[in-house]
Amino acid sequence: MSADTAVLLLSGGLDSTTVLAHATDRNYRVHAMSFDYGQKNRFETQRAAAIARQYQVVEHRIVTIDLRVFGGSSLTSDAPVERDRPLDEIGTGIPSTYVPARNTLFLSYALCWAEALGAHNIFIGVNEVDTSGYPDCRPAFIEAFTQMANTGTRIGTESGVTIHTPLQRLRKAAIIRMGLALGVDYGMTNSCYHPDQAGRACGRCDACRLRLNAFEEVGIADPVPYQSSPAA
Amino acid sequence: MSADTAVLLLSGGLDSTTVLAHATDRNYRVHAMSFDYGQKNRFETQRAAAIARQYQVVEHRIVTIDLRVFGGSSLTSDAPVERDRPLDEIGTGIPSTYVPARNTLFLSYALCWAEALGAHNIFIGVNEVDTSGYPDCRPAFIEAFTQMANTGTRIGTESGVTIHTPLQRLRKAAIIRMGLALGVDYGMTNSCYHPDQAGRACGRCDACRLRLNAFEEVGIADPVPYQSSPAA
Repeated sequence: MSADTAVLLLSGGLDSTTVLAHATDRNYRVHAMSFDYGQKNRFETQRAAAIARQYQVVEHRIVTIDLRVFGGSSLTSDAPVERDRPLDEIGTGIPSTYVPARNTLFLSYALCWAEALGAHNIFIGVNEVDTSGYPDCRPAFIEAFTQMANTGTRIGTESGVTIHTPLQRLRKAAIIRMGLALGVDYGMTNSCYHPDQAGRACGRCDACRLRLNAFEEVGIADPVPYQSSPAA
Repeated sequence: MSADTAVLLLSGGLDSTTVLAHATDRNYRVHAMSFDYGQKNRFETQRAAAIARQYQVVEHRIVTIDLRVFGGSSLTSDAPVERDRPLDEIGTGIPSTYVPARNTLFLSYALCWAEALGAHNIFIGVNEVDTSGYPDCRPAFIEAFTQMANTGTRIGTESGVTIHTPLQRLRKAAIIRMGLALGVDYGMTNSCYHPDQAGRACGRCDACRLRLNAFEEVGIADPVPYQSSPAA
Protein backbone atom coordinates (compact mmCIF):
# COMPACT_ATOMS: atom_id res chain seq x y z
CA MET A 1 0.00 0.00 0.00
CA SER A 2 1.28 3.46 -0.82
CA ALA A 3 3.18 5.51 1.72
CA ASP A 4 0.38 8.05 1.93
CA THR A 5 -2.18 5.72 3.49
CA ALA A 6 -3.17 6.88 6.95
CA VAL A 7 -5.24 5.78 9.91
CA LEU A 8 -7.02 8.76 11.47
CA LEU A 9 -8.70 8.88 14.87
CA LEU A 10 -12.05 10.59 14.37
CA SER A 11 -14.23 11.48 17.35
CA GLY A 12 -16.53 13.74 15.37
CA GLY A 13 -15.48 16.71 17.44
CA LEU A 14 -14.02 20.00 16.32
CA ASP A 15 -10.39 18.93 16.58
CA SER A 16 -10.43 15.57 14.82
CA THR A 17 -12.71 16.89 12.05
CA THR A 18 -10.18 19.64 11.38
CA VAL A 19 -7.45 17.00 11.26
CA LEU A 20 -9.50 15.00 8.75
CA ALA A 21 -9.88 18.08 6.53
CA HIS A 22 -6.12 18.64 6.80
CA ALA A 23 -5.21 15.03 5.94
CA THR A 24 -7.67 14.99 3.03
CA ASP A 25 -6.24 18.27 1.78
CA ARG A 26 -2.78 16.64 1.85
CA ASN A 27 -4.14 13.76 -0.25
CA TYR A 28 -3.75 11.02 2.34
CA ARG A 29 -5.86 7.94 1.73
CA VAL A 30 -7.69 8.08 5.05
CA HIS A 31 -8.94 5.09 7.03
CA ALA A 32 -10.96 6.63 9.85
CA MET A 33 -11.42 4.98 13.23
CA SER A 34 -13.90 5.93 15.94
CA PHE A 35 -14.63 4.45 19.34
CA ASP A 36 -17.85 3.64 21.04
CA TYR A 37 -16.67 3.39 24.62
CA GLY A 38 -19.85 3.60 26.60
CA GLN A 39 -19.59 7.35 26.87
CA LYS A 40 -22.62 9.39 27.77
CA ASN A 41 -22.30 11.09 24.44
CA ARG A 42 -23.73 8.57 21.96
CA PHE A 43 -24.04 11.26 19.31
CA GLU A 44 -20.29 11.27 18.84
CA THR A 45 -20.06 8.14 16.73
CA GLN A 46 -23.07 9.17 14.61
CA ARG A 47 -21.47 12.53 13.92
CA ALA A 48 -18.17 10.83 13.18
CA ALA A 49 -19.86 8.52 10.64
CA ALA A 50 -21.54 11.44 8.88
CA ILE A 51 -18.28 13.38 8.75
CA ALA A 52 -16.38 10.33 7.46
CA ARG A 53 -18.95 10.01 4.64
CA GLN A 54 -18.65 13.68 3.78
CA TYR A 55 -14.89 13.36 3.42
CA GLN A 56 -15.21 10.12 1.47
CA VAL A 57 -12.69 8.23 3.57
CA VAL A 58 -11.58 4.85 2.23
CA GLU A 59 -13.11 3.13 5.24
CA HIS A 60 -14.61 4.09 8.59
CA ARG A 61 -14.58 1.62 11.45
CA ILE A 62 -16.17 2.01 14.84
CA VAL A 63 -14.49 -0.02 17.55
CA THR A 64 -16.54 -0.91 20.60
CA ILE A 65 -14.53 -0.84 23.79
CA ASP A 66 -15.96 -0.94 27.26
CA LEU A 67 -13.89 1.58 29.21
CA ARG A 68 -16.45 1.45 32.01
CA VAL A 69 -14.85 -1.73 33.33
CA PHE A 70 -11.86 0.39 34.29
CA GLY A 71 -13.90 3.01 36.16
CA GLY A 72 -12.19 6.24 37.09
CA SER A 73 -13.82 8.84 34.81
CA SER A 74 -16.96 10.95 34.87
CA LEU A 75 -17.25 10.59 31.09
CA THR A 76 -18.02 6.90 31.45
CA SER A 77 -19.52 6.70 34.93
CA ASP A 78 -22.33 8.40 36.79
CA ALA A 79 -20.11 10.95 38.52
CA PRO A 80 -20.91 14.59 37.66
CA VAL A 81 -18.79 16.43 35.12
CA GLU A 82 -17.53 19.93 35.81
CA ARG A 83 -19.91 22.73 34.76
CA ASP A 84 -19.57 26.47 34.45
CA ARG A 85 -15.88 26.40 35.36
CA PRO A 86 -14.00 29.66 34.78
CA LEU A 87 -11.93 29.41 31.59
CA ASP A 88 -8.69 29.88 33.48
CA GLU A 89 -9.41 26.77 35.54
CA ILE A 90 -10.09 24.60 32.50
CA GLY A 91 -6.88 22.95 31.45
CA THR A 92 -5.34 22.95 34.90
CA GLY A 93 -4.98 19.71 36.81
CA ILE A 94 -6.30 16.40 35.51
CA PRO A 95 -10.04 16.82 34.96
CA SER A 96 -12.70 14.31 36.03
CA THR A 97 -13.37 13.65 32.34
CA TYR A 98 -9.97 11.97 32.04
CA VAL A 99 -10.45 8.39 30.83
CA PRO A 100 -7.51 6.34 32.10
CA ALA A 101 -4.83 6.03 29.45
CA ARG A 102 -7.40 6.67 26.73
CA ASN A 103 -5.11 8.00 24.03
CA THR A 104 -2.72 5.11 24.64
CA LEU A 105 -5.54 2.67 23.98
CA PHE A 106 -6.94 4.60 20.98
CA LEU A 107 -3.50 4.96 19.39
CA SER A 108 -2.83 1.27 20.03
CA TYR A 109 -5.97 0.36 18.09
CA ALA A 110 -4.89 2.74 15.32
CA LEU A 111 -1.48 1.08 15.33
CA CYS A 112 -3.06 -2.39 15.01
CA TRP A 113 -4.99 -1.23 11.97
CA ALA A 114 -1.98 0.56 10.50
CA GLU A 115 0.06 -2.62 10.94
CA ALA A 116 -2.61 -4.69 9.18
CA LEU A 117 -2.93 -2.14 6.34
CA GLY A 118 0.79 -1.52 6.00
CA ALA A 119 0.08 2.17 6.65
CA HIS A 120 2.91 4.31 8.00
CA ASN A 121 0.84 7.30 9.08
CA ILE A 122 -1.48 7.89 12.01
CA PHE A 123 -3.32 11.17 12.57
CA ILE A 124 -4.63 12.32 15.93
CA GLY A 125 -6.10 15.66 16.94
CA VAL A 126 -4.34 16.15 20.25
CA ASN A 127 -3.32 19.63 21.25
CA GLU A 128 -1.58 20.47 24.44
CA VAL A 129 -2.68 24.07 24.77
CA ASP A 130 -6.31 23.53 25.72
CA THR A 131 -5.74 20.14 27.29
CA SER A 132 -2.65 20.59 29.40
CA GLY A 133 -4.29 18.55 32.16
CA TYR A 134 -4.11 15.35 30.10
CA PRO A 135 -0.68 13.71 30.20
CA ASP A 136 -1.48 11.77 27.03
CA CYS A 137 -1.89 14.91 24.89
CA ARG A 138 1.67 16.15 25.33
CA PRO A 139 4.35 16.02 22.62
CA ALA A 140 6.58 13.91 24.90
CA PHE A 141 3.86 11.26 25.02
CA ILE A 142 3.43 11.26 21.24
CA GLU A 143 7.20 10.91 20.83
CA ALA A 144 7.29 8.03 23.32
CA PHE A 145 4.38 6.30 21.59
CA THR A 146 6.12 6.66 18.22
CA GLN A 147 9.29 5.14 19.65
CA MET A 148 7.27 2.24 21.06
CA ALA A 149 5.49 1.72 17.71
CA ASN A 150 8.77 1.72 15.84
CA THR A 151 10.18 -0.89 18.21
CA GLY A 152 7.19 -3.21 18.53
CA THR A 153 5.64 -3.52 15.07
CA ARG A 154 6.64 -4.90 11.72
CA ILE A 155 5.94 -1.65 9.83
CA GLY A 156 7.67 0.33 12.57
CA THR A 157 10.85 -1.73 12.59
CA GLU A 158 10.91 -1.92 8.80
CA SER A 159 10.33 1.69 7.83
CA GLY A 160 8.88 3.68 10.70
CA VAL A 161 5.50 4.99 11.74
CA THR A 162 4.73 8.70 11.95
CA ILE A 163 2.12 10.03 14.36
CA HIS A 164 0.85 13.27 12.84
CA THR A 165 -0.42 15.86 15.31
CA PRO A 166 -1.12 18.90 13.15
CA LEU A 167 -2.95 20.69 15.99
CA GLN A 168 -0.29 20.09 18.64
CA ARG A 169 0.73 23.72 19.12
CA LEU A 170 -2.57 25.38 18.27
CA ARG A 171 -5.07 27.03 20.56
CA LYS A 172 -8.75 26.27 19.90
CA ALA A 173 -9.35 29.53 17.98
CA ALA A 174 -6.39 28.80 15.70
CA ILE A 175 -7.77 25.30 15.06
CA ILE A 176 -11.10 26.82 13.99
CA ARG A 177 -9.35 29.29 11.67
CA MET A 178 -7.36 26.42 10.15
CA GLY A 179 -10.54 24.41 9.64
CA LEU A 180 -12.47 27.31 8.13
CA ALA A 181 -9.64 27.84 5.64
CA LEU A 182 -10.05 24.15 4.71
CA GLY A 183 -13.83 24.50 4.35
CA VAL A 184 -14.85 22.57 7.46
CA ASP A 185 -18.54 22.71 8.32
CA TYR A 186 -18.37 22.96 12.10
CA GLY A 187 -22.13 22.57 12.26
CA MET A 188 -21.52 18.83 11.75
CA THR A 189 -19.23 18.49 14.74
CA ASN A 190 -19.99 17.87 18.38
CA SER A 191 -17.86 18.82 21.36
CA CYS A 192 -20.33 18.73 24.27
CA TYR A 193 -19.83 16.12 27.01
CA HIS A 194 -23.59 15.72 27.52
CA PRO A 195 -25.88 17.00 24.77
CA ASP A 196 -29.64 16.58 25.23
CA GLN A 197 -31.81 14.01 23.43
CA ALA A 198 -32.03 16.29 20.38
CA GLY A 199 -28.24 16.47 20.22
CA ARG A 200 -28.09 20.10 21.37
CA ALA A 201 -24.97 21.08 23.29
CA CYS A 202 -25.25 22.07 26.95
CA GLY A 203 -23.07 25.16 26.70
CA ARG A 204 -21.80 24.65 30.24
CA CYS A 205 -19.32 21.76 30.33
CA ASP A 206 -15.60 22.41 29.89
CA ALA A 207 -15.68 21.37 26.23
CA CYS A 208 -18.60 23.69 25.41
CA ARG A 209 -17.03 26.61 27.25
CA LEU A 210 -13.71 26.23 25.45
CA ARG A 211 -15.50 25.92 22.13
CA LEU A 212 -17.79 28.91 22.62
CA ASN A 213 -14.91 31.03 23.81
CA ALA A 214 -12.88 30.07 20.76
CA PHE A 215 -15.68 30.90 18.29
CA GLU A 216 -16.11 34.25 20.04
CA GLU A 217 -12.38 34.89 19.66
CA VAL A 218 -12.58 34.03 15.95
CA GLY A 219 -15.53 36.41 15.70
CA ILE A 220 -18.16 34.08 14.28
CA ALA A 221 -21.12 32.26 15.81
CA ASP A 222 -20.77 28.57 16.62
CA PRO A 223 -23.08 26.88 14.09
CA VAL A 224 -24.13 24.00 16.37
CA PRO A 225 -27.44 24.25 18.28
CA TYR A 226 -27.32 24.86 22.03
CA GLN A 227 -29.94 23.97 24.65
CA SER A 228 -30.30 27.64 25.53
CA SER A 229 -28.73 30.83 24.33
CA PRO A 230 -25.06 30.44 25.23
CA ALA A 231 -23.76 32.95 27.75
CA ALA A 232 -20.80 33.74 25.54
CA MET B 1 -3.70 1.16 46.92
CA SER B 2 -0.46 -0.48 48.02
CA ALA B 3 2.57 -0.47 45.80
CA ASP B 4 2.39 -4.25 45.35
CA THR B 5 -0.87 -4.27 43.40
CA ALA B 6 -0.38 -5.61 39.90
CA VAL B 7 -2.26 -6.11 36.67
CA LEU B 8 -1.27 -9.41 35.07
CA LEU B 9 -1.99 -10.51 31.50
CA LEU B 10 -3.24 -14.08 31.69
CA SER B 11 -3.83 -16.09 28.52
CA GLY B 12 -4.13 -19.40 30.31
CA GLY B 13 -1.07 -20.70 28.52
CA LEU B 14 2.11 -22.11 29.95
CA ASP B 15 3.98 -18.80 30.06
CA SER B 16 1.41 -16.50 31.66
CA THR B 17 0.40 -19.17 34.19
CA THR B 18 4.02 -19.42 35.27
CA VAL B 19 4.12 -15.63 35.60
CA LEU B 20 0.98 -15.74 37.77
CA ALA B 21 2.58 -18.33 40.04
CA HIS B 22 5.68 -16.12 40.25
CA ALA B 23 3.72 -12.92 41.05
CA THR B 24 1.60 -14.74 43.64
CA ASP B 25 4.75 -16.17 45.22
CA ARG B 26 6.08 -12.61 45.47
CA ASN B 27 2.87 -11.58 47.26
CA TYR B 28 1.55 -9.21 44.61
CA ARG B 29 -2.15 -8.50 44.82
CA VAL B 30 -2.97 -9.70 41.32
CA HIS B 31 -5.71 -8.30 39.06
CA ALA B 32 -5.74 -10.70 36.11
CA MET B 33 -6.83 -9.66 32.62
CA SER B 34 -7.60 -11.94 29.68
CA PHE B 35 -8.75 -11.22 26.16
CA ASP B 36 -11.41 -12.80 24.05
CA TYR B 37 -10.32 -11.63 20.62
CA GLY B 38 -12.21 -13.89 18.30
CA GLN B 39 -9.39 -16.35 18.25
CA LYS B 40 -10.00 -19.88 17.08
CA ASN B 41 -8.99 -21.05 20.50
CA ARG B 42 -12.05 -20.36 22.67
CA PHE B 43 -10.73 -22.64 25.39
CA GLU B 44 -8.13 -20.07 26.31
CA THR B 45 -10.37 -17.76 28.30
CA GLN B 46 -12.04 -20.69 30.09
CA ARG B 47 -8.65 -22.02 31.11
CA ALA B 48 -7.56 -18.55 32.15
CA ALA B 49 -10.66 -18.18 34.37
CA ALA B 50 -10.03 -21.55 36.06
CA ILE B 51 -6.39 -20.67 36.66
CA ALA B 52 -7.32 -17.22 38.02
CA ARG B 53 -9.67 -18.91 40.50
CA GLN B 54 -7.02 -21.39 41.55
CA TYR B 55 -4.60 -18.58 42.34
CA GLN B 56 -7.32 -16.55 44.10
CA VAL B 57 -6.60 -13.35 42.22
CA VAL B 58 -8.31 -10.19 43.51
CA GLU B 59 -10.25 -9.89 40.25
CA HIS B 60 -10.24 -11.45 36.80
CA ARG B 61 -11.61 -9.52 33.86
CA ILE B 62 -12.07 -10.75 30.33
CA VAL B 63 -11.97 -7.99 27.75
CA THR B 64 -13.67 -8.63 24.43
CA ILE B 65 -11.83 -7.15 21.49
CA ASP B 66 -12.50 -7.92 17.88
CA LEU B 67 -9.05 -8.17 16.32
CA ARG B 68 -10.64 -9.72 13.23
CA VAL B 69 -11.55 -6.25 11.96
CA PHE B 70 -7.85 -5.67 11.45
CA GLY B 71 -7.28 -8.90 9.50
CA GLY B 72 -3.72 -9.95 8.95
CA SER B 73 -3.33 -13.06 11.12
CA SER B 74 -4.10 -16.74 10.79
CA LEU B 75 -4.98 -16.85 14.49
CA THR B 76 -8.03 -14.71 13.88
CA SER B 77 -8.87 -15.48 10.26
CA ASP B 78 -9.49 -18.58 8.19
CA ALA B 79 -5.95 -18.80 6.83
CA PRO B 80 -4.08 -22.00 7.76
CA VAL B 81 -1.57 -21.96 10.60
CA GLU B 82 1.84 -23.57 10.21
CA ARG B 83 1.96 -27.28 11.10
CA ASP B 84 4.75 -29.74 11.65
CA ARG B 85 7.44 -27.12 11.16
CA PRO B 86 10.95 -28.17 12.12
CA LEU B 87 11.90 -26.70 15.50
CA ASP B 88 14.76 -24.69 14.03
CA GLU B 89 12.32 -22.86 11.73
CA ILE B 90 9.97 -21.93 14.57
CA GLY B 91 10.97 -18.55 15.92
CA THR B 92 12.48 -17.32 12.67
CA GLY B 93 10.73 -14.64 10.66
CA ILE B 94 7.35 -13.23 11.65
CA PRO B 95 4.93 -16.17 11.77
CA SER B 96 1.42 -16.16 10.30
CA THR B 97 0.07 -16.34 13.84
CA TYR B 98 1.28 -12.78 14.46
CA VAL B 99 -1.68 -10.61 15.42
CA PRO B 100 -0.88 -7.03 14.39
CA ALA B 101 0.52 -5.07 17.33
CA ARG B 102 -1.19 -7.44 19.77
CA ASN B 103 1.03 -6.93 22.80
CA THR B 104 0.80 -3.17 22.34
CA LEU B 105 -2.98 -3.42 22.54
CA PHE B 106 -2.98 -5.90 25.44
CA LEU B 107 -0.48 -3.86 27.44
CA SER B 108 -2.49 -0.70 26.71
CA TYR B 109 -5.57 -2.32 28.22
CA ALA B 110 -3.49 -3.42 31.21
CA LEU B 111 -2.22 0.14 31.51
CA CYS B 112 -5.78 1.53 31.49
CA TRP B 113 -6.71 -0.79 34.33
CA ALA B 114 -3.50 -0.06 36.23
CA GLU B 115 -4.21 3.67 35.88
CA ALA B 116 -7.74 3.22 37.21
CA LEU B 117 -6.53 1.02 40.09
CA GLY B 118 -3.50 3.13 40.90
CA ALA B 119 -1.35 0.01 40.36
CA HIS B 120 2.27 0.51 39.46
CA ASN B 121 3.02 -3.02 38.28
CA ILE B 122 2.12 -4.92 35.14
CA PHE B 123 3.16 -8.53 34.51
CA ILE B 124 3.40 -10.10 31.08
CA GLY B 125 4.80 -13.47 30.05
CA VAL B 126 6.78 -12.44 27.00
CA ASN B 127 10.02 -14.19 26.28
CA GLU B 128 12.23 -13.44 23.38
CA VAL B 129 13.97 -16.78 23.07
CA ASP B 130 11.13 -18.85 21.69
CA THR B 131 9.34 -15.92 20.03
CA SER B 132 12.12 -14.03 18.33
CA GLY B 133 9.86 -13.54 15.33
CA TYR B 134 7.55 -11.21 17.22
CA PRO B 135 8.86 -7.64 17.47
CA ASP B 136 6.57 -6.96 20.43
CA CYS B 137 8.21 -9.62 22.63
CA ARG B 138 11.65 -8.01 22.68
CA PRO B 139 13.15 -6.19 25.68
CA ALA B 140 13.53 -3.02 23.59
CA PHE B 141 9.77 -3.00 23.01
CA ILE B 142 9.02 -3.49 26.71
CA GLU B 143 11.41 -0.63 27.56
CA ALA B 144 9.78 1.63 24.96
CA PHE B 145 6.31 0.76 26.24
CA THR B 146 7.39 1.54 29.81
CA GLN B 147 8.77 4.90 28.71
CA MET B 148 5.49 5.66 26.93
CA ALA B 149 3.46 4.63 30.00
CA ASN B 150 5.58 6.82 32.25
CA THR B 151 5.03 9.79 29.94
CA GLY B 152 1.34 9.42 29.16
CA THR B 153 -0.38 8.38 32.39
CA ARG B 154 -1.03 9.90 35.76
CA ILE B 155 0.51 6.99 37.70
CA GLY B 156 3.43 6.89 35.28
CA THR B 157 4.25 10.59 35.54
CA GLU B 158 3.73 10.57 39.30
CA SER B 159 5.70 7.55 40.36
CA GLY B 160 6.40 5.24 37.46
CA VAL B 161 5.03 2.00 36.08
CA THR B 162 7.08 -1.19 35.96
CA ILE B 163 6.42 -3.84 33.33
CA HIS B 164 7.60 -7.12 34.83
CA THR B 165 8.77 -9.74 32.34
CA PRO B 166 10.14 -12.52 34.56
CA LEU B 167 10.40 -14.92 31.61
CA GLN B 168 12.20 -12.54 29.26
CA ARG B 169 15.51 -14.41 29.07
CA LEU B 170 14.21 -17.94 29.60
CA ARG B 171 13.83 -20.74 27.11
CA LYS B 172 10.62 -22.79 27.31
CA ALA B 173 12.25 -25.65 29.29
CA ALA B 174 13.58 -23.17 31.85
CA ILE B 175 10.10 -21.64 32.19
CA ILE B 176 8.65 -25.09 32.92
CA ARG B 177 11.34 -25.77 35.53
CA MET B 178 10.59 -22.40 37.15
CA GLY B 179 6.87 -23.17 37.19
CA LEU B 180 7.34 -26.69 38.59
CA ALA B 181 9.42 -25.22 41.43
CA LEU B 182 6.46 -22.90 42.12
CA GLY B 183 3.98 -25.79 42.07
CA VAL B 184 2.28 -24.95 38.76
CA ASP B 185 -0.15 -27.59 37.51
CA TYR B 186 0.58 -27.46 33.77
CA GLY B 187 -2.34 -29.79 33.16
CA MET B 188 -4.57 -26.71 33.57
CA THR B 189 -2.83 -24.72 30.85
CA ASN B 190 -3.37 -24.61 27.11
CA SER B 191 -0.84 -23.68 24.46
CA CYS B 192 -2.33 -25.20 21.28
CA TYR B 193 -3.48 -22.85 18.49
CA HIS B 194 -6.36 -25.15 17.54
CA PRO B 195 -7.42 -27.78 20.06
CA ASP B 196 -10.33 -30.06 19.15
CA GLN B 197 -13.87 -29.83 20.57
CA ALA B 198 -12.80 -31.75 23.67
CA GLY B 199 -10.00 -29.26 24.28
CA ARG B 200 -7.25 -31.70 23.32
CA ALA B 201 -4.10 -30.17 21.83
CA CYS B 202 -3.20 -30.90 18.21
CA GLY B 203 0.47 -31.61 18.84
CA ARG B 204 1.43 -30.20 15.44
CA CYS B 205 1.21 -26.38 15.52
CA ASP B 206 4.25 -24.29 16.40
CA ALA B 207 3.04 -23.77 19.98
CA CYS B 208 2.49 -27.51 20.57
CA ARG B 209 5.84 -28.43 19.06
CA LEU B 210 7.72 -25.94 21.21
CA ARG B 211 5.85 -27.11 24.29
CA LEU B 212 6.33 -30.83 23.66
CA ASN B 213 10.01 -30.30 22.92
CA ALA B 214 10.43 -28.34 26.17
CA PHE B 215 8.73 -31.00 28.31
CA GLU B 216 10.94 -33.62 26.69
CA GLU B 217 13.99 -31.51 27.53
CA VAL B 218 12.82 -31.20 31.15
CA GLY B 219 12.36 -34.97 31.17
CA ILE B 220 8.69 -35.20 32.17
CA ALA B 221 5.51 -35.88 30.23
CA ASP B 222 3.30 -32.93 29.27
CA PRO B 223 0.18 -33.46 31.46
CA VAL B 224 -2.29 -31.99 28.92
CA PRO B 225 -4.25 -34.38 26.66
CA TYR B 226 -3.31 -34.58 22.97
CA GLN B 227 -5.50 -35.62 20.04
CA SER B 228 -3.10 -38.49 19.31
CA SER B 229 0.12 -39.72 20.83
CA PRO B 230 2.54 -36.85 20.30
CA ALA B 231 5.49 -37.63 18.02
CA ALA B 232 7.91 -36.19 20.57
